[in-house]
Amino acid sequence: MNFDIKTPNKELIEQLQHKIDFKTKPIGSLGMLEQLAVKIGCIQNTLSPDLKQPTIMVFAGDHGIALDGVSPYPQEVTWQMVANFMAGGAAINVFGRQNGIDIKIVDAGVNYDFDKEWNVIDAKIAHGTKSYLNGAAMTAEQFQLAIKRGADLVVQAHKGGTNIIGFGEMGIANTSSAAVLLHLLADVDLKECVGRGTGWDDEGLKRKYEILKSAVENYKGDSTIENIFAHFGGFEIVMITGAMLKAAELKMVIMVDGFIITSALLAASKMNPKVLEYCIFTHKSNENGHKHMLAHLNANPILDLGMRLGEGTGAAVAYPIIESAVNFLNQMASFEDAGVSNSDKVINE
Amino acid sequence: MNFDIKTPNKELIEQLQHKIDFKTKPIGSLGMLEQLAVKIGCIQNTLSPDLKQPTIMVFAGDHGIALDGVSPYPQEVTWQMVANFMAGGAAINVFGRQNGIDIKIVDAGVNYDFDKEWNVIDAKIAHGTKSYLNGAAMTAEQFQLAIKRGADLVVQAHKGGTNIIGFGEMGIANTSSAAVLLHLLADVDLKECVGRGTGWDDEGLKRKYEILKSAVENYKGDSTIENIFAHFGGFEIVMITGAMLKAAELKMVIMVDGFIITSALLAASKMNPKVLEYCIFTHKSNENGHKHMLAHLNANPILDLGMRLGEGTGAAVAYPIIESAVNFLNQMASFEDAGVSNSDKVINE
Repeated sequence: MNFDIKTPNKELIEQLQHKIDFKTKPIGSLGMLEQLAVKIGCIQNTLSPDLKQPTIMVFAGDHGIALDGVSPYPQEVTWQMVANFMAGGAAINVFGRQNGIDIKIVDAGVNYDFDKEWNVIDAKIAHGTKSYLNGAAMTAEQFQLAIKRGADLVVQAHKGGTNIIGFGEMGIANTSSAAVLLHLLADVDLKECVGRGTGWDDEGLKRKYEILKSAVENYKGDSTIENIFAHFGGFEIVMITGAMLKAAELKMVIMVDGFIITSALLAASKMNPKVLEYCIFTHKSNENGHKHMLAHLNANPILDLGMRLGEGTGAAVAYPIIESAVNFLNQMASFEDAGVSNSDKVINE
Repeated sequence: MNFDIKTPNKELIEQLQHKIDFKTKPIGSLGMLEQLAVKIGCIQNTLSPDLKQPTIMVFAGDHGIALDGVSPYPQEVTWQMVANFMAGGAAINVFGRQNGIDIKIVDAGVNYDFDKEWNVIDAKIAHGTKSYLNGAAMTAEQFQLAIKRGADLVVQAHKGGTNIIGFGEMGIANTSSAAVLLHLLADVDLKECVGRGTGWDDEGLKRKYEILKSAVENYKGDSTIENIFAHFGGFEIVMITGAMLKAAELKMVIMVDGFIITSALLAASKMNPKVLEYCIFTHKSNENGHKHMLAHLNANPILDLGMRLGEGTGAAVAYPIIESAVNFLNQMASFEDAGVSNSDKVINE
């Protein structure tokens, strides 16, 4: 599946900065809010950008590698947390309600059959991936299908009026996939990529590392992004990659969350680097590998609150800051409008 | 004027952390949001805190030292910006509207007579301070009056139902006062305290430093906080100090903004260190001296966006993050509520 991603209109940068510099404030004094305003203006190709129907899609999937002992939580937590999402009791629900963000829950490949009445969006590829300890997590066909289903879901959201989208995830053991992807796609030492995930102690962390080291050593595939990703990925991660690439093609603003979501972006950026032009990095996760991902992508996130919950919560908590960037650009008075003297000339009579 | 500030109920820390640890999330995974939730719970003495009628009071005042050339902006910008506040066109208005924060504008001592119909809150001490280059900025009586007027305004807000309050400021040349207060109250080298303010170039910065160095050398008073503060303060800064001390006495949550507001808190903390127990540091300003203030107060702010606008904008932009802290504590399901397996025990049947 190919994605035709256009570069945002950089010619607007100067005009946007000019508009910002004549607001009633010292030059540059809104810091990162100014950079965000310029970025969103260029993406939307306007001096008056607008955020419409913000959405976070949370993709859930299970991982065969979980059964090899990489996580302290049992696999059933994945579907139980989906149930929690549908009941509105999870962190992502709380922050979504607070900030007016529509939360959509997608079954990308959970090892459980959800009751149809729950209204979980059904994009299930299979009942979890296979363990990648000795073979591929998914087939090439499953990989392509996951990319396509993620893209299709974004097309639907875009048709519904959404122009800013974030992604969340739930999948016991998915920090393991993210760690291996970071290791192989960004050439970071595996030890630096493997973190405590949802809460390993030192011994658990060591075991997780040893399992992933074996998995990498056992990999017999080539170094193409598609083969590496199909081998070590999770259905939810691949689906998010497809979703991101389509969102960029549709010129939507993409809110990038933490470790897992950034691993999906890392993969997406290897398939089409222009996807990065549409991304706002919302937070720095406390999961160790995330700092390496951010460095590799040359990203400077909005928040650094020591969060590492997943579900897209970093994006949901950061969203009001993105709104602030758009709001000051649209709503603040200029020196001239307000009759305020500028530093080098008095505009008011 | 004395303030009877009680220590918040620290005995609740354990119960609050227990409540947090049974939410459906990995232990500690909400990072600073968890610390904020615990702090606010202790201040309000409850496991279910609530933020009511958030308010930011913006105090405006003029500074005699401005006429000695410490700022690139003319003094009239102070009243012009007050007019901009009243018309709703300033950054603080935009962020206040966005986040449901009531913005109140107070004339602490602007060198201008406002039309009564503008509804600026009149707490004017005088038409600006005197220059502190060769004498005190204000008299001891003016100082006490400013402390009292700040306190009285907070009492009114508290009676109106506000339990979380932030402060903003507008006053051409007030970074100079803040710099000298930092130098004298926290024993930081004056060079490190003096920054570019609203936008000095290298030459302007050097001149600002030389003027302030002379002012400090010319100071003949003693080292009591009241004398130093009356000599180098501004009416808006002193009023904010009084307001903060009263807010702490009334057990309100105090949102601390950037360089000027933290200088008011620095002074407040020397008058009664317990005020710090009620403070949430909302952002790290890009004004150089602020990092020294934060270090002196052992503070770790929520945001670091390179902002340096003033007006209380850091607090206004950070407010939704504080809301997120309270919301997850009140609204997230526990493992037991949601029937989600915990890492070491399955609570669901």
